[in-house]
Parts: sequence; C-alpha cells; structure tokens
Amino acid sequence: MQIAVLTLDGFNELDSFVAAAILNRLRGQGWAAHITSPAPRVTSMNGVTVDRQKPLEFAAEADAVIIGSGIRTRDHAADTDLLARLGIDPSRQLIGAQCSGTLLLAKLGLIGNLPACTDLTTKPWVIEAGVEVLDAPFVAHGNVATAGGCLASQYLAAWIIARLAGLREAEEALHYVAPVGEKERYVTQAMAAVRPFLPVEAVAGSA
Amino acid sequence: MQIAVLTLDGFNELDSFVAAAILNRLRGQGWAAHITSPAPRVTSMNGVTVDRQKPLEFAAEADAVIIGSGIRTRDHAADTDLLARLGIDPSRQLIGAQCSGTLLLAKLGLIGNLPACTDLTTKPWVIEAGVEVLDAPFVAHGNVATAGGCLASQYLAAWIIARLAGLREAEEALHYVAPVGEKERYVTQAMAAVRPFLPVEAVAGSA
Repeated sequence: MQIAVLTLDGFNELDSFVAAAILNRLRGQGWAAHITSPAPRVTSMNGVTVDRQKPLEFAAEADAVIIGSGIRTRDHAADTDLLARLGIDPSRQLIGAQCSGTLLLAKLGLIGNLPACTDLTTKPWVIEAGVEVLDAPFVAHGNVATAGGCLASQYLAAWIIARLAGLREAEEALHYVAPVGEKERYVTQAMAAVRPFLPVEAVAGSA
Repeated sequence: MQIAVLTLDGFNELDSFVAAAILNRLRGQGWAAHITSPAPRVTSMNGVTVDRQKPLEFAAEADAVIIGSGIRTRDHAADTDLLARLGIDPSRQLIGAQCSGTLLLAKLGLIGNLPACTDLTTKPWVIEAGVEVLDAPFVAHGNVATAGGCLASQYLAAWIIARLAGLREAEEALHYVAPVGEKERYVTQAMAAVRPFLPVEAVAGSA
C-alpha cells in the first residue's frame, strides 16, 4: 500500500509525521507513506524544511491519502488550482483529513452533509463551510475519515492500517509506538476510537 | 528557552518531531525547539530529508537538549568524535533522551548507575552498556530524563516545560495537541507519568 501524506506550506509536524511514521511500521509488508507536496521543499509552521518524497500528483494514485494540517490551511483551501490538481477520489481511495485538513476536504465537497472532526482552532471555519463538527477525535463515513487534535493522527493511521491490512496489524503498529509500560492501555484506547468505524467483518476477523 | 532536539542520520520522526512540536507551543513566550544535527541535512529512517535548524555545537549552549532516537544509534554511540563534540552538561542544562537516545546518554556517562527508560529494541544494548532499564515510559533523576516508546516523547517535552516554565504551561501544551474529546484524560495520563519526577515546589505551585 502506498500512502500520500499531503503536506503543505506551514504544515504541523505532528499531523504529517505521526501518521506517516505509524503507517511506515508496515514497511516490511511493502507499505510506504510519503510526504507529498506541490513544491520540492516544504517548510513547517515551526520552520522545519523538508524535501517532499512525492509530488502532488501522487495523491491521486495512492491507495490512501492523509490530508495534513497547518497554519496556512485557509490559504490553501482558497487555492482552487491546488484543489483541482489533487484529484483524490473516495470511491477508489481511503481519505483521511487531520485537523484543518478537514477544511480542505469540505472545500473539495468530500464531506457532504456528514458530521466531521477537526481541531478547536479550525472548527469555526469548518462550520462556516457548512459542516457539522463533532466533539470527538475521529469519525469515518465509508472511505472518508476526519480527526481532530494533533495526536488523533494516530487514529487516522490506525484506521488506514485496519482497513487495508487488518485490525491486528493496526494494533501492532500502535503497540510499537506507544510508551513503554503503557502499551496495552494505549492500544485499547486508540482502537476504541477507531473500531466503531470499521466494517463489521474487519472487527469480527480480529477475535 | 532554546532547546536542541538532537537529530541524527536514520532518525525516528516521532521521537524528534513530537517533542519539538509540543515544545514549540511555547513560541509566544520566546521558546524555540530546533532540529539540531552534525550535518546540514539529515535523513530519517523512513527517507525523509530535513534541513537542520542548528549545528551540533548548539547542543552545548541550549537550555535543554533532547537526544532523539533512530535506527543508527548504535553506530552513533560508537562515534567518539560525535560524542566528544556534543559537550552537553546536566549541571547547567536539562537533558532528555528518547528511546535509543538513552544509549548515547549511557556512552556519555550521564546516566551513572541510575535506572533509565528506553524502547524494547534498544533495551539489550542499554543493559550491555551497564544501565538498569525500567518497564516505564519516563524517569528523571535531577536534570537527566529518559523516555521509552516513541510517543513517550510527549512526556519528555512536558517535563522540560514543567521544569522551565511551569506545570500549568506543560498541561496547556499537552491539552492543545491531545485528541479532541479526550483532552482531559490525555493530559491527566501524561502528567501522571511526569509529575512524580518534578521538584515538590513545581507541583505545589500548580494547585
């Protein structure tokens, strides 16, 4: 599985790298999550400059796409050229949006009239875009998921792994990154956020 | 406060960026956490290349230093030139090591005979270096802290903020990054890991 982690200028490091690092735990099974950006180099909200791993056009080909967050998302959401070039499609891809990424998803018309998650700062802008915002870290409707709060990015990653590999693989990836001595509790809490939004067969298959 | 996040070739993105992003929540108070590396550009274990924000020598001047983790730490721990150039000193700096960063700390002789935390993969190497390893996510002895499990990096960041700004500031930074709808629980759990290792006056002052 190839995953695009859409990372735009002003990006929040937590939102791009937490999800990417957890997804890359499945590297041994041929998975790869790639920092995906319109420009060859992209600078974070804290001034960290990163070389992109894939160009923007990769997002349309990936098996799954995570739309990261950042401090310039309102500008990006107004960039009709950027939105047009994205070419993502939930009928053939899993799509997850993190925090202000939900605003991009709303502008792309991919949320419809379903409730979504976002961070507290972006919440008014997502509501203005016509979307109901939940007081929850994660929600998925079919192939589209949204998460709110930087560290909820681990739930987006777990959802993608559970959907495309399996529940056990998601639990193992979370277990690896969880704090020592708290791993069981951590995995239980994280999977509790994600499991209600998995197809019944995925959950049953993990027993 | 200026914080060096020591980031070496093969680094784990979670270990460097989770701590740095949480510490940078205090940017409005003049704090900055900097990706600090011997080379101008450094590449992660998942192939993400980042421009360093500060050279290696910055570590010796910083108010606090976080030693990140990665897949090449055993090589780095054998690099006596690197270790000699670090020049970090817990008598005048807070020093935190994440996962395999604990091995570097052991090689620098900064753990002494106190028990430490590290990840499960590095554990045998840290034990071989003569250090007792705890089944816990976080421990601090005076100005030296160690953490185990990638996402325990948030505990290192919280400890530095609590020590150098205050308990309330640490809680606020964690609250911001925590998942929506789980923020109270998240902050409570994280501070429970850190609070036993804070000076009595810091904890009392937060009531």
